[in-house]
Amino acid sequence: VKKNHPGALRRIVAANIRRCRKELGISQQNFAYDIDMDRTYFGAIERGERNVSIDNIERIANGLNVSPHTLLQCVGESADCISSEG
Amino acid sequence: VKKNHPGALRRIVAANIRRCRKELGISQQNFAYDIDMDRTYFGAIERGERNVSIDNIERIANGLNVSPHTLLQCVGESADCISSEG
Repeated sequence: VKKNHPGALRRIVAANIRRCRKELGISQQNFAYDIDMDRTYFGAIERGERNVSIDNIERIANGLNVSPHTLLQCVGESADCISSEG
Repeated sequence: VKKNHPGALRRIVAANIRRCRKELGISQQNFAYDIDMDRTYFGAIERGERNVSIDNIERIANGLNVSPHTLLQCVGESADCISSEG
């Protein structure tokens, strides 16, 4: 098991949330509204700027209709998964 | 995809962390020390009392030497996964 550098996971989560939301074809604003989350806060989560909590991961995953653990998985397509940032 | 009732995920995470830590044969106190986390706080996480953040999930997963997403997966053995609590 490789150890990520600190903070890598939140960028993976951010990229996964953004990708899943776009696959649903819904805007940040509308999605945030649907899950009753402040749109500014949700935007910051998608940019990896927020240390999102497990309860909010659950809420977002439910809104995206995906299993929560998939939002933490590193998918090959995402640059966030492989960057090392020296 | 089934929707969990709110807060179900943190109990799954708590059960997974506890199970993985016990598999390592290390006490709560020593594990918390190893990952530089307050032992009282870590104990509360293992009891599902804390809305743990993604950065701390990453830190705990690294300490347990598991991939972070596995801590969110519902494993069949755990009662936390299947309880519905009316």
